[in-house]
Amino acid sequence: MLNLSLHAIQFSIEIIATFAFALSGLIAGIKKRMDLVGLFIVSGLSAFGGGTLRDILLDRRPFFWVSHSTWLWGLIGVCLLAMFFMRERHITLTEKAIQIPDALGLGLFTALGTQIALELGMPAIVAALMGMMTAVFGGVLRDICCNEIPKAFSDHQPYAVLAFLGGWVLIGLSELNLPEWLTLFLSASFTTLLRWLAIQFKWQLPSQKGTHKN
Amino acid sequence: MLNLSLHAIQFSIEIIATFAFALSGLIAGIKKRMDLVGLFIVSGLSAFGGGTLRDILLDRRPFFWVSHSTWLWGLIGVCLLAMFFMRERHITLTEKAIQIPDALGLGLFTALGTQIALELGMPAIVAALMGMMTAVFGGVLRDICCNEIPKAFSDHQPYAVLAFLGGWVLIGLSELNLPEWLTLFLSASFTTLLRWLAIQFKWQLPSQKGTHKN
Amino acid sequence: MLNLSLHAIQFSIEIIATFAFALSGLIAGIKKRMDLVGLFIVSGLSAFGGGTLRDILLDRRPFFWVSHSTWLWGLIGVCLLAMFFMRERHITLTEKAIQIPDALGLGLFTALGTQIALELGMPAIVAALMGMMTAVFGGVLRDICCNEIPKAFSDHQPYAVLAFLGGWVLIGLSELNLPEWLTLFLSASFTTLLRWLAIQFKWQLPSQKGTHKN
Repeated sequence: MLNLSLHAIQFSIEIIATFAFALSGLIAGIKKRMDLVGLFIVSGLSAFGGGTLRDILLDRRPFFWVSHSTWLWGLIGVCLLAMFFMRERHITLTEKAIQIPDALGLGLFTALGTQIALELGMPAIVAALMGMMTAVFGGVLRDICCNEIPKAFSDHQPYAVLAFLGGWVLIGLSELNLPEWLTLFLSASFTTLLRWLAIQFKWQLPSQKGTHKN
Repeated sequence: MLNLSLHAIQFSIEIIATFAFALSGLIAGIKKRMDLVGLFIVSGLSAFGGGTLRDILLDRRPFFWVSHSTWLWGLIGVCLLAMFFMRERHITLTEKAIQIPDALGLGLFTALGTQIALELGMPAIVAALMGMMTAVFGGVLRDICCNEIPKAFSDHQPYAVLAFLGGWVLIGLSELNLPEWLTLFLSASFTTLLRWLAIQFKWQLPSQKGTHKN
Repeated sequence: MLNLSLHAIQFSIEIIATFAFALSGLIAGIKKRMDLVGLFIVSGLSAFGGGTLRDILLDRRPFFWVSHSTWLWGLIGVCLLAMFFMRERHITLTEKAIQIPDALGLGLFTALGTQIALELGMPAIVAALMGMMTAVFGGVLRDICCNEIPKAFSDHQPYAVLAFLGGWVLIGLSELNLPEWLTLFLSASFTTLLRWLAIQFKWQLPSQKGTHKN
């Protein structure tokens, strides 16, 4: 694995992160009892929204879903399977069922987005923001489609800030001349783990006067 | 008409589709009793939103409303006329008054968007999605501006899926070496007609367990 | 000051307008009792949203916040300061506290956006619309993040229309061969002043039948 080209590593991470967010969108859509088209739209936007925003901002073409369009067929297949599967049985999907793939995608897209921006010569803080936007935007689109206030904005639990920190971890590690895959892996694990801890222990961001009015 | 250049045909379709969506936006704005500025914004976003998204994704410039900016004056004129006209009389605009131009624009933009993406060498499924997004996004912006949940997401009647199918009709027909105008016409008619039938006969998309919770 | 290069003048205006919108976002976020991350997101989107949309539509790169990324650090600093400051004392921020920087940013971004579009050879009406979108979009994002219906759409007080008019003032003045800074200053003052008068005297846009239903 150490000999893999950087491109192959980035490609693998893009796939896993895309899959994780597609899954989070699929579960969110199933919870809302969406029809097949709704499921495809919400899982597709979750999966490809962040990467597409990143590529528009960085002026990169083609998009992932254009150059690897067979994955779109896969997504349609998964939505069909999910529809038939859910018709058969009563499964109660908890909020946690979304949070696990969401945390995984958050970490992976953060690391990848930050690294791609660094490669294109962006300043460190811009790279960290690009990583954060890549990671957060898919979930924002998912929540908007499900007619819910985006977790990234409403939640007092840390979400976007962890992606931002994870971006800085990648920036710091990339100074150390570690193998690329290790840098990506460590940064992604950092973000995903912290998000997981934040959910488990109900971490709260410091807020004004400690009272929350929305 | 058979001798018209492809560019002239595409241009005509862009105009008719733009006009149809502008009309749907105008009616939606009038129903909401918007002021002149609101009318211009909602009809402009309906009319040019889908094509602009398509051009950003495909990295095409200039946008339609930049290269044919006189149409913007036309839109302002239409909004002014509509304002004065509506002041004079009480007209009850039904939901159907929006659905007819909406269905027309849906078919035309789908066919056009799919064809433009094919010309740029996109894979078939990407072209069909680009067509769908071109057709759907203007209406989504219209519904957001009117503070309503987008029809494309909330409706259990087929909408986006018909655009997606219409894109595949165009892709199939373009294999047959028919004249370009006929290909575009057949694909657009297919989508518009199906959307119309879906509304008339209240077609429902298969949903989970047949119950709808939103 | 008369000898400043056009680029230096545009740069100064971009900074002041960005700062004004960041402030309006910061105040809006504080009113909603957002946490530090929310404050940074809402003030950042208010500040950089309009200019980024303008640059995507005009295909300009790099974005302001990429080429001057140190300003992002400044924004983080300001948000931190605001957090600590607000913890210490009870300050009641009125709606007016947002309207003043909002009106200032509206005028400046309108003038700047219109001028940049003119320089790139856009037709006059497109330039005026680009100016309007530059000025309005940041505030739209701010209001969406605060879970409020965007002022630009809901308000029957003139807002976007003043930006549109301000764009035409700049277009008219730029025919007169005045110094660039004077053209920008006059157009921006026109828009900001009119917006201020609109708020003070509760100007209303002509609406249908004079009744407002939303």
